[in-house]
Amino acid sequence: MLSQQQVPGAVEAALRDFFRAGRAALDQISPVVAQAGRELEDFVLDGGKRIRPLCVHAGWQCAVSAAGRPTKDTESLMVRTGAAIELIQACALVHDDILDRSDTRRGNPTVHRRFQAQHERLGWGGDAAHHGKSVAILLGDLALSWADDLVHGFRPGLDLPAPPVLPVAAAALWSRMRTEVLAGQLLDITNEVSADETADAAYRVMEFKTAAYTVARPLQIGVALAGGSPELSTALGRIGVGLGLAFQLRDDLLGVVGDPAQTGKPSGDDLVAGKRTVIVALALANSAPPAADRLRGLLGRNLSATELADARAILADSGALAAVEEQITGHLTTALDEIDDLDISAAARADLTALAHRIADRQA
Amino acid sequence: MLSQQQVPGAVEAALRDFFRAGRAALDQISPVVAQAGRELEDFVLDGGKRIRPLCVHAGWQCAVSAAGRPTKDTESLMVRTGAAIELIQACALVHDDILDRSDTRRGNPTVHRRFQAQHERLGWGGDAAHHGKSVAILLGDLALSWADDLVHGFRPGLDLPAPPVLPVAAAALWSRMRTEVLAGQLLDITNEVSADETADAAYRVMEFKTAAYTVARPLQIGVALAGGSPELSTALGRIGVGLGLAFQLRDDLLGVVGDPAQTGKPSGDDLVAGKRTVIVALALANSAPPAADRLRGLLGRNLSATELADARAILADSGALAAVEEQITGHLTTALDEIDDLDISAAARADLTALAHRIADRQA
Repeated sequence: MLSQQQVPGAVEAALRDFFRAGRAALDQISPVVAQAGRELEDFVLDGGKRIRPLCVHAGWQCAVSAAGRPTKDTESLMVRTGAAIELIQACALVHDDILDRSDTRRGNPTVHRRFQAQHERLGWGGDAAHHGKSVAILLGDLALSWADDLVHGFRPGLDLPAPPVLPVAAAALWSRMRTEVLAGQLLDITNEVSADETADAAYRVMEFKTAAYTVARPLQIGVALAGGSPELSTALGRIGVGLGLAFQLRDDLLGVVGDPAQTGKPSGDDLVAGKRTVIVALALANSAPPAADRLRGLLGRNLSATELADARAILADSGALAAVEEQITGHLTTALDEIDDLDISAAARADLTALAHRIADRQA
Repeated sequence: MLSQQQVPGAVEAALRDFFRAGRAALDQISPVVAQAGRELEDFVLDGGKRIRPLCVHAGWQCAVSAAGRPTKDTESLMVRTGAAIELIQACALVHDDILDRSDTRRGNPTVHRRFQAQHERLGWGGDAAHHGKSVAILLGDLALSWADDLVHGFRPGLDLPAPPVLPVAAAALWSRMRTEVLAGQLLDITNEVSADETADAAYRVMEFKTAAYTVARPLQIGVALAGGSPELSTALGRIGVGLGLAFQLRDDLLGVVGDPAQTGKPSGDDLVAGKRTVIVALALANSAPPAADRLRGLLGRNLSATELADARAILADSGALAAVEEQITGHLTTALDEIDDLDISAAARADLTALAHRIADRQA
C-alpha cells in the first residue's frame, strides 16, 4: 500500500508519463506548440506541495482501512486522480496569476510573464503583455482539458484509456469540485471589485474556492475511489471543510506576513492585490474609523516598505492576525477530535493527523 | 430518428436542461455567481449555427444507416454530445474574444465587454476592463468543465449521470479534439506575433483549430456513438477535414469582405486583428513588394474606411480572394464525390450533402 511519503513521487511519475504523451501529441501538431506545452509541463512538475493528491490518498486510505479491502486495483486510480487534480490546479494558478496580475509564483516568473518575456526577447510584433496573457489563457485551458483526460485514464494522442474506469461516485464529486472552485473564484473577484468588506463574504469564498476544492472534495474522492461508505464520506467532508478553512486562513496570514524566501511570493502580496480576506474584513470591522480608512487606502496598490509596515500594524492592532491564528487552531483542534472518532486503522489515522497539521501549520 | 432539421432544437433543449441544473447549483453557492452563470447561459443559447452538433448528427446517422442499427439508445447520447461540444465552443469563443480583443460577437457586446460594462455601470473599484476579462476567463473555464460534465451525462449538482455511458471510442476522439483545438489556437496566436507569413503556417492552424475540431472530429464522434465501422470513421474523417478547411476559408473570406449585418462582426475584422489567414499569405506572396508592404502596414490596427478599402483592393488584385473561393469549391467538390461513394442510406447522404453545402457556402 502506497504510503503518504510516497504520494508526491508517485503523482509526479504519473504526471511525467502523461506529459510524455502530451509532448508527442503536441509535437505532431507543431514544434511551436510543443514548446509552449513544455512550459506547462515544467510548471506542473516544478513544484507545489501536492496537498490535493495527499488528501485523495488520505481519503482512499481511510476507506481501504475501514473496509479491509484489497488496495491494488484502486491504487493506480488514486494516484491518477491525484495527478489529475494537479492539472486542474495548474489551470487555476495560471489563470489566477493573470487575474491577480502576479509577476512571480514559487520564486519564478508567472507563466504569462514568461511568454511576455519570450515575446520581448524575440522581438515579436504586437503587445508582448497581451501575448503572454493569451498564451497563458490557452495553456490553462489545455491543463483543464487534460485534467479530465487524465482522470478518465486517457493520455494525449492515445485512444485506449488505462483501466480501471473512474467510479461514478468519484466522477460526480469531480464534477462538483470543478464547479465549486470556479464559482468560488468568480465570487472572489466580484467581492474584490464590489468591495464587499464583510467576513461573511470572505468565508463564502473560502468555503468553495478552497475548503471544498483543496481538502474536502479530494478526501471524499479518495473515499469514492476505494468504494468507501457514505458515512465515512460525510465525516471526511466535514473534517475537510474545517481543514480547508484552516488552509485558506493560513494562506491569508502568509499573504500578509509570510516570508518571501519561504512563500516564493513578494511580501504582503495580498494587500497589494487588494484581496478581501477574512483578516482584512476583521481588521476593518474592529478598527476605529481613521485606522479603517487608512487601511482601505492601502489596499489594492503598490506599497512602499513604510506603507506595508503601516498596513501590517493596523492588522495586528485590530487583533485580526491573532483572531485568525486562533480560528486556525480551532479548526485544527476540531478536525483532530473528529479524526480520533473515525473507525479507521492506526496507520490511516496517523497519516490523516499528520496531514491535518501540515495543512494548518505550513509556512509556505 | 431525429432529423437534421430537429438537431438545433434538440441540442438547445439539452442545453436548457443542463443550465437549469447549473443555475440551481450556482445559486446555492451565491446569487452573484448565478448571475454570471446566466450570462454564459444566454451566450450559449443565444445563437450559433450549431454546425458541430449537426456534424455529430450526420456522422451518427451515417453509422446508424450503414449498420441498420436501432437508434433509440444512442439518440440521446448523440444530442448530449452535440450539446457538450457547444459548451467547448462557448469557452473557445469567450476566450478567443479576449485574445482577439473583440468588442462584438453576433451583434452583441462580447462577454468580457459585458462584464466590463457592468463594472462601469455599478461604479465598482479597480480596472473595469481587467475585471471584464477576468470574469470571462473564469466563465470560459466553467464552460469547458461543464462540457466534460455534460458529455459524461452529469448535470451540475446532480450525482447520478444520465445513461448511456459515453463509449470509449467517442471519449478518445473527444479527448483528441480538445487538445487539437487548443493547440491550433496556440499555433494561431504564435504565428500572428511571430509574423509567419507562409500559407503553410495558416493551413496548419486551419487543420487543427478548425477542420479537426469543427467538422472531422464531430463527424467521427457521431460514428463512434453509433458504434460505426473504422472504415466509415476514416472516410468521414477525410471528408470532414476537406469540409473543415472549406469552413475556415469561408470564415476568412467573411472576415475580410463579409457583410456586418449578416456576420454580426465589424467589417474587415480579421484585418484589424492582424490575422495570418491563407488570404493574407497568398496576397503577400503574390503582390509586388510595394503592395505587399502596404498590406503589411495595414494589418493589426484600426483602419479608416479608405484604408480598409485599400487593403481589400490589394487582396482582390493579388488574386487571393478568387484563389480562396476556388479552393473552397475544390474542397466541396471532392467532399461531395466522397459522400457519393459512402455506403449509407439515401437520407443520410442527402443530409450530409446538404450540410456540406451549408458549411462551404454560408454567408454568416
